[in-house]
Amino acid sequence: MKPDLSRRVFISAGGAGALAATVSPATAATPSAAAAAAPSAGAAAPSWDACLAVARAVLLLGPDDAPLLPEYERVLKDGLPRSGGGPRRILVVGAGPAGLVAADLLVRAGHEVTVVEANGNRVGGRVKTFRTGGHEHAAQPFADPAQYAEAGAMRIPESHPLVNGLIESLGLARRPFHLVDVDAAGAPVGRTWIHVNGIRERRADYQRRPRRINRSFGVPAELEDTPAADILRTALAPARDLVTGKRDKELLEGWATLVQRYGAWSMYRYLTEHAQLDDATIDLVGTLENLTSRLPLSFLHSLVSSALISPDTRFNELTGGTAALVDALYARVKDRVRLDRRAVRVEQDDREVRVHTVSEGRDAPPETEVFTADRAIVTVPFAGLRHVTFRPALSYPKRRAVTELHYDAATKVLLEFSRRWWEFSEEDWERELEVIRPGLYRDYRLGSVPADGSLLASHPSVPPGHLSDAQRIHYAAHRTVQDHEGQPPAARVIGGGSVSDNANRFMYEPSHPVPGSEGGVMLASYSWADDALKWDAYDGDERYPRALGGIQEVYGQRVEVFYTGVGRTQSWMRDPYAYGEASVLLPGQHTELLPHVPTREGRLHFAGCHTSAKPAWIEGALESAVRTAVEVQH
Amino acid sequence: MKPDLSRRVFISAGGAGALAATVSPATAATPSAAAAAAPSAGAAAPSWDACLAVARAVLLLGPDDAPLLPEYERVLKDGLPRSGGGPRRILVVGAGPAGLVAADLLVRAGHEVTVVEANGNRVGGRVKTFRTGGHEHAAQPFADPAQYAEAGAMRIPESHPLVNGLIESLGLARRPFHLVDVDAAGAPVGRTWIHVNGIRERRADYQRRPRRINRSFGVPAELEDTPAADILRTALAPARDLVTGKRDKELLEGWATLVQRYGAWSMYRYLTEHAQLDDATIDLVGTLENLTSRLPLSFLHSLVSSALISPDTRFNELTGGTAALVDALYARVKDRVRLDRRAVRVEQDDREVRVHTVSEGRDAPPETEVFTADRAIVTVPFAGLRHVTFRPALSYPKRRAVTELHYDAATKVLLEFSRRWWEFSEEDWERELEVIRPGLYRDYRLGSVPADGSLLASHPSVPPGHLSDAQRIHYAAHRTVQDHEGQPPAARVIGGGSVSDNANRFMYEPSHPVPGSEGGVMLASYSWADDALKWDAYDGDERYPRALGGIQEVYGQRVEVFYTGVGRTQSWMRDPYAYGEASVLLPGQHTELLPHVPTREGRLHFAGCHTSAKPAWIEGALESAVRTAVEVQH
Repeated sequence: MKPDLSRRVFISAGGAGALAATVSPATAATPSAAAAAAPSAGAAAPSWDACLAVARAVLLLGPDDAPLLPEYERVLKDGLPRSGGGPRRILVVGAGPAGLVAADLLVRAGHEVTVVEANGNRVGGRVKTFRTGGHEHAAQPFADPAQYAEAGAMRIPESHPLVNGLIESLGLARRPFHLVDVDAAGAPVGRTWIHVNGIRERRADYQRRPRRINRSFGVPAELEDTPAADILRTALAPARDLVTGKRDKELLEGWATLVQRYGAWSMYRYLTEHAQLDDATIDLVGTLENLTSRLPLSFLHSLVSSALISPDTRFNELTGGTAALVDALYARVKDRVRLDRRAVRVEQDDREVRVHTVSEGRDAPPETEVFTADRAIVTVPFAGLRHVTFRPALSYPKRRAVTELHYDAATKVLLEFSRRWWEFSEEDWERELEVIRPGLYRDYRLGSVPADGSLLASHPSVPPGHLSDAQRIHYAAHRTVQDHEGQPPAARVIGGGSVSDNANRFMYEPSHPVPGSEGGVMLASYSWADDALKWDAYDGDERYPRALGGIQEVYGQRVEVFYTGVGRTQSWMRDPYAYGEASVLLPGQHTELLPHVPTREGRLHFAGCHTSAKPAWIEGALESAVRTAVEVQH
Repeated sequence: MKPDLSRRVFISAGGAGALAATVSPATAATPSAAAAAAPSAGAAAPSWDACLAVARAVLLLGPDDAPLLPEYERVLKDGLPRSGGGPRRILVVGAGPAGLVAADLLVRAGHEVTVVEANGNRVGGRVKTFRTGGHEHAAQPFADPAQYAEAGAMRIPESHPLVNGLIESLGLARRPFHLVDVDAAGAPVGRTWIHVNGIRERRADYQRRPRRINRSFGVPAELEDTPAADILRTALAPARDLVTGKRDKELLEGWATLVQRYGAWSMYRYLTEHAQLDDATIDLVGTLENLTSRLPLSFLHSLVSSALISPDTRFNELTGGTAALVDALYARVKDRVRLDRRAVRVEQDDREVRVHTVSEGRDAPPETEVFTADRAIVTVPFAGLRHVTFRPALSYPKRRAVTELHYDAATKVLLEFSRRWWEFSEEDWERELEVIRPGLYRDYRLGSVPADGSLLASHPSVPPGHLSDAQRIHYAAHRTVQDHEGQPPAARVIGGGSVSDNANRFMYEPSHPVPGSEGGVMLASYSWADDALKWDAYDGDERYPRALGGIQEVYGQRVEVFYTGVGRTQSWMRDPYAYGEASVLLPGQHTELLPHVPTREGRLHFAGCHTSAKPAWIEGALESAVRTAVEVQH
């Protein structure tokens, strides 16, 4: 097919994808029973067609409402049907999971494929493991060379069929990722901490007796005895009921109704106006259920996420790190991948597409190189496309999407410890602390150990030479832990995570030990949006003593003795290859922008998790990889 | 007065400020005629008291509804009344305009004042001029040592009485800042460009005939002939009418009504639901009037800003840069200021307040120092306080404000040119380009000059040695300007700025030449929120060729010959002393958080523009400086 490059054709040239049934901005709203029930529908109410398009994306249905999943699974397993038209030259821009899988499918189908990747030393995009070695030949990131930790994707829901199918076909080892901490037998326990308003309680205790913590937020009497998760579930129920238990056409229309009613709503608006929650209760739910920083963002985003992953969904992680998936995908197409080639200009005409790239030029002047192909699959996050020149210009709706699609910040701070103290019992603590100095266990219990940094890294298991004087001095200046605050009991948890209202917000323990290591890397802080941007103002080295202080507020001062002095941190919003954690849409963007994100523009096809209804998930990236690989065959 | 440090007293110990009439979370909504008219008032509707508190802050009224401005002006001019209680030891945390002015007032009143500032080499906070010399002894930032440009505050409204009074009393030279470009006689002309959807029109032409641009966004027929600014004015009118032309009690209640009706609304919601604008019209207004990136933020923020600065407000700038104000303020208190002292821990008890600081330790190990005082004025942005330890903990409402108060991103990219080409006529262009190579003027007009960087900095007026090979290569790779695109006519403007839908978004020409220089520094890109964060993913050096390309899209390729190769950029969100451009609140935060921002906590007083209803403005900082200086006297 030779695409006509006029703008009209650009706009209407839809591919085979779920969202590809392009909605014309001029389409008038089709009246529907659902629309009539909308709490607020003005001139700005989205058309029913636009709502259906979003619903199809959520449910992974084609324009004919047929499920796309079976075909996607088949393609991912058995490969693309051989093309009748002979081999094409295909350029894939970006070597994240979407780009690598699309490239692999197209190579196997006999096409001539080149992948250009901006990053000079690794592929994988937002799948990134801090580790020694790997395809990126990384230098040892932690004091213990065996240790590794996730900068990005860290858990894979069992409810995501494509990624799990891929993992199986690649023969990669999986094991449970414990979102909730477990006992030695693997049963959920809920011993991790909730630490808010100066109160520290174990999750299971809060679930049974929420009153003390709820009162500390000032929630009204009638909600005092309801745990935050239950308040949230009840609040979301009316919206979820529109789709719960429905099938086929009813399910599709349920989702479209949901989109039409709430597509323009923020989570804040839903909680205040629909659920009629007061500020104090929103503070409680926001703090404990990780909603606060995303309150101004789209209600639909949170609802879709919770609908696609039910509360009893189980998660897995990959043994050796999520990058094991990247290693396996990369091995298949490595000879097609050109690293250190940042796409900065994309031209197309009736003959070909040309992608101009420039290298980073770290040790030498940057180089430019132009790649030519019949088709290109562009997997770059739209936030990054804002600085890519397109000639001719992209269509109007696509340009709006590139300009406005909201990307959220997410920041992780990881700290290495020479022992997995979070698994300790009090007896373990006593034994290990007495090794440092007799009486130290008691002194910590009494809160009489000065928070001056003198005992940082003091356990004999900590390898010397990693803790800088500067970190020690910064730590001592902050003295986050008050000398005379009570020392909490041993956490004694495997996996799971704690929540705090301090700057760390969410903390996760590793679900499994690293073989050959008695230590562990803790995700000391995982935060989003405004919470994340506050960390981003600091350089890496300034974050670690702060993150350690936040951990100590929750778990007690004594953990300091095992800190190796080594941390790693990832600010996705500051990352020059990612430009954010993922697209988390603003109110109204699902109907205005999302239908125009995956649509084809002449020789250009668009992949990446942002083109799906599952941003931030590998599953969404894989959906898009299959969709675009199929598109370029046609 | 010896403060009782129990939490109850912390919450209720209000100062003398406009917002200090603390609103108890338990206060029930007082019924009012206004509330009944609210389009949406649920369980979450803010209390009338909370709305009045916000209204008082906007109008700068005391809790008794008396105007505070006369007293503030008197204090700023004549100083604080001498304290009856003898000199106090006062610590001021942060040496921005609020901290410097508060310190000066308190020194003059006989108190023992120390100012601690985190920055090691300058004071002024978000007043920052890229310049040679100054109190910070800055190294030459541009190729021409005479050139300077603003990283932060750049324009001072004539409607801000405190800052203008201060400038007068300090004897600083002012001159007009042209928000709209002017002719040689100083009259507004509107010759700067609107460049959207591939269309380029002068502002005045668009104002007269908006149809072509409006149609390019797809606005409905009935709005095709209305300029974006008029559409926005009409849309905002119903809200503004609640306060327009009112006085005294009516004005106060008008504002409180506005707060109660729209306090929980985003700008997006107001435009869609209240103004009933469709997506296309919001795209138009958002793009041209700089609303797009702030659509999810508080409607009140934008409304207050537009209400406090009317469309015919005139702006000034300070000769030599806004930092001239900082130089003058600093000179008065320099012996009290301790640079390179970042506050990381604040303790108070019944005897004193102790502020623990740590230095950055650039050339040596960091140092810690503890400062002791009777009272402290904390001017640090709340986004920065998130990483400061307070013992005892701040009150619950203050902690929420520290955690949640939204700070917006803002990023500037400045480029230096050896000639002020934006002032050129076509004759000037011809003369100057022919100097480089005969026929070059015509070649640029025909679009036949390759965009390969070979003519960057090629004019003999450009001093050699500043343009790196790497910049040239990056520039050539992007080739933002299409060879055969039409060359626009000479801009021929003084001051003012252009708007584009490209990544640069807003571009400003300097309002005045720098004496002794034929060149000029252009604010090549000024962007907010998501627009700004996309620049923030790139390091400074990567921004300049991109920003130049964006300028060329709007003003033509030929400007490249005057580019000196030197740029400066400021990402306020990435700045470890600022943590954002300013507090720009989210829907609902005015009533939930703002009343608790300026309130005193024991020995701690809170200043800075975020404690006022004028965030981002020096005026707001000065209001807070006077308020807290008065507070600590009592």
